[in-house]
Amino acid sequence: MAKDKKLVEQITSMEEDFAQWYTDVVIKAGLIDYTSVKGCMVLKPAGYAIWELIQSQLDARFKETGVENVYLPMFIPESLLQKEKDHVEGFAPEVAWVTHGGLNQLQERMCVRPTSETLFCDFYAKEIQSYRDLPKVYNQWCSVVRWEKETRPFLRSREFLWQEGHTAHATAEDAEARTVQMLNVYADFCEQVLAMPVVKGRKTDKEKFAGAEATYTIEALMHDGKALQSGTSHNFGDGFAKAFGIQYTDKENKLQYVHQTSWGMTTRLIGAVIMVHGDDSGLVLPPRVAPTQVMIVPIMQKKEGVLEKADELKEMLSTNYRVKVDDSDKNPGFKFAEQEIKGIPLRVEVGPKDIEAGQAVVVRRDTREKYVVPFAELDTKIGEILEKMQQDMFNRALAHREENTHVATSWDEFTDILEKKQGFIKGMWCGNQECEIAIKEETGATTRCMPFEQETLSDVCVHCGKPAKKMVYFGKAY
Amino acid sequence: MAKDKKLVEQITSMEEDFAQWYTDVVIKAGLIDYTSVKGCMVLKPAGYAIWELIQSQLDARFKETGVENVYLPMFIPESLLQKEKDHVEGFAPEVAWVTHGGLNQLQERMCVRPTSETLFCDFYAKEIQSYRDLPKVYNQWCSVVRWEKETRPFLRSREFLWQEGHTAHATAEDAEARTVQMLNVYADFCEQVLAMPVVKGRKTDKEKFAGAEATYTIEALMHDGKALQSGTSHNFGDGFAKAFGIQYTDKENKLQYVHQTSWGMTTRLIGAVIMVHGDDSGLVLPPRVAPTQVMIVPIMQKKEGVLEKADELKEMLSTNYRVKVDDSDKNPGFKFAEQEIKGIPLRVEVGPKDIEAGQAVVVRRDTREKYVVPFAELDTKIGEILEKMQQDMFNRALAHREENTHVATSWDEFTDILEKKQGFIKGMWCGNQECEIAIKEETGATTRCMPFEQETLSDVCVHCGKPAKKMVYFGKAY
Repeated sequence: MAKDKKLVEQITSMEEDFAQWYTDVVIKAGLIDYTSVKGCMVLKPAGYAIWELIQSQLDARFKETGVENVYLPMFIPESLLQKEKDHVEGFAPEVAWVTHGGLNQLQERMCVRPTSETLFCDFYAKEIQSYRDLPKVYNQWCSVVRWEKETRPFLRSREFLWQEGHTAHATAEDAEARTVQMLNVYADFCEQVLAMPVVKGRKTDKEKFAGAEATYTIEALMHDGKALQSGTSHNFGDGFAKAFGIQYTDKENKLQYVHQTSWGMTTRLIGAVIMVHGDDSGLVLPPRVAPTQVMIVPIMQKKEGVLEKADELKEMLSTNYRVKVDDSDKNPGFKFAEQEIKGIPLRVEVGPKDIEAGQAVVVRRDTREKYVVPFAELDTKIGEILEKMQQDMFNRALAHREENTHVATSWDEFTDILEKKQGFIKGMWCGNQECEIAIKEETGATTRCMPFEQETLSDVCVHCGKPAKKMVYFGKAY
Repeated sequence: MAKDKKLVEQITSMEEDFAQWYTDVVIKAGLIDYTSVKGCMVLKPAGYAIWELIQSQLDARFKETGVENVYLPMFIPESLLQKEKDHVEGFAPEVAWVTHGGLNQLQERMCVRPTSETLFCDFYAKEIQSYRDLPKVYNQWCSVVRWEKETRPFLRSREFLWQEGHTAHATAEDAEARTVQMLNVYADFCEQVLAMPVVKGRKTDKEKFAGAEATYTIEALMHDGKALQSGTSHNFGDGFAKAFGIQYTDKENKLQYVHQTSWGMTTRLIGAVIMVHGDDSGLVLPPRVAPTQVMIVPIMQKKEGVLEKADELKEMLSTNYRVKVDDSDKNPGFKFAEQEIKGIPLRVEVGPKDIEAGQAVVVRRDTREKYVVPFAELDTKIGEILEKMQQDMFNRALAHREENTHVATSWDEFTDILEKKQGFIKGMWCGNQECEIAIKEETGATTRCMPFEQETLSDVCVHCGKPAKKMVYFGKAY
């Protein structure tokens, strides 16, 4: 049993160095690898399979709300990018520029899309003429490029996979309703599927998306107490519509500008799953996004009947679950360690003694709880354990967030918490950007959001003492 | 009923101008639109939904053969692209170059992937050490860029969506087996899902992929008698492995080079479906790739109970089929014409008289056959009709190909067929590239493939009269 220990020892402990632990897990669980293309990663089978499960479940939720998928070009001509002033200022410094096609220099250079508002606007300006053409509720799954200087697997890379929804509506109310609706879809998805509680709220003007009137966000708390922005939904009002001339004729035959939204989630979610649920043995995947939910490990597999039984159980369980048998020639201890590193929710051990007793041993990845289950009850019992595990993981993450959410009513309290504790700080804010900037400069903490569920913690701003306008979640963020 | 006629009249007849018919169908069926980005298209909801159905069914077939999905970067550093000599010569003239990241010039320019052999090789060189690491059977779904001068919707555009499989094997035999296996997956998919018969064969050296030892292809015949290369599978031997140093230690502890393959299918398949099955009223979609399989059109929908019945039928049919109700305020004739343009396989008409009689009228898109079906039998009957339609569409396309496949045993016959007929020409070939080039220059016809099912039509080359080596399918191609 030397080998398995070695495998596990390669993972740095979370307490010792969280960043190194994260990198170790990402690599050892086979999710990602570095490439010769600086700042870009390979999503390996184990990583991409998680993305496929995120994609299919999120896409189904989108379609239930009337979303239709499309695909727009990956290139944006420079003149198109420049049409909306705030937007170009936000993105131009971090795009990759294509200047040559084949052997010839392009007449106009194009960037690789960092996001596709400008392309959708150009498209909608042609597509939308009448109120009958509204709403347009389109989404695309694609990759985007942002020329980041520092990159980290899943959290920040020069190219990443995402979905971007772009909608156009007749009225400001419709656009606002869709913006909030999609934020709720995101929050529900994170909580139900990723077992990750989120705080829903609005970004301050300083933190909102380039070109947006309002940005809504879901913020999650990672194991190390840092915040991760996990999905955003933007209401553009009619700003882009005016810049791009997207108008429709209403029922009274009058020309009106459309109101637009956009919303996106990315492969960063995989990073969130790692940092919310992982432990010192590696990844822990919530059953709903686990590409393999059950790993059957035969014990003494060379004994007659063992591999056959393992395959028979796999066959039986495959109708309802994603199941594999590890019949490699590694020893069981090594197989256990691998299953743990990869975060596979359940391990089913079956050896000669189990077969004699007509039962298998089921082990939960998160709690290591063991269940001895008769073969005849295995299918039902596994369903129950997976469901329980999904719930428990959410509850643990929620408890962790609650333990690590603090209230500061004075600047002393605020700095004291930052010094001695980790996590979110709830505090009142005067609404002035100067104050927001000063807080960031003095402490490194940023405004994560103004939560939809507002409380009155005190009457004055936690930093400047002037009258408070909003309760804000502050935190150090990825 | 003026409106519906107008809608249909906007489509040019196939006989009059096939190219214009194609463009009309693509636009009027709402599959695609042009963009401000020259040579790039928007895949609109009706077009992208077909791609989603192709993707999900093809992906399931891949996974049954052990394929795992991954995602590699979209950029290729110039030095990486240049590692395999034939490959870079084939692709360098048609790639888009990124020269700047943000405000800075890159130290080394990168192209946007035209295909990802070089990236996979770079990845495999790190991933593969031992025979235990083999085979690697990876695939990715992504977009690629080729800087084409002339573009046509689906058939040729500067950016297109595809899948590219890249595999590495221990032996030459394993690589060859996988190359053929994937070609068979492609052929089966085209015939079973797209109702499109294909000829399987090998490309001549002149027509093979840049860097491949052998390229296998499936060739389909379009309605206008032109050929369309619909999928290719390449065996690279160990050429790339040697260029990139991809070696493994075998069981005898000796270093060996891997043998590789790649294989791809693209959104071009949607163009094939249009050109194989479409008619003068528009698109005709095989049921298995029809995003909407049944369109329910209420007749006299303002009469009490009609819309309710339409919705009830939709509810009933939705378990087994993809169903919509067209309850817009357009008149039925207009709705019929729209359903036909969009190629929706079945139309179900239901009005007050039908409701009284307890039945609906079902109309097939391809043959316009009408069936009067009692409500209680509708679910079963629709399944039968869709199945029959899928089969009939394949059989018609096969009959069309057989009628338009000709044998030429002399050069006179060859040129005579080209002058008076359309379609494939089967002919013997001496195997010399000079002869192949001369045929192309004299007639515009190219070698489509050397079919797996060889026949001996004569002993001599159809062009030069020297001893024949292979039977070849010739044709004019897209």
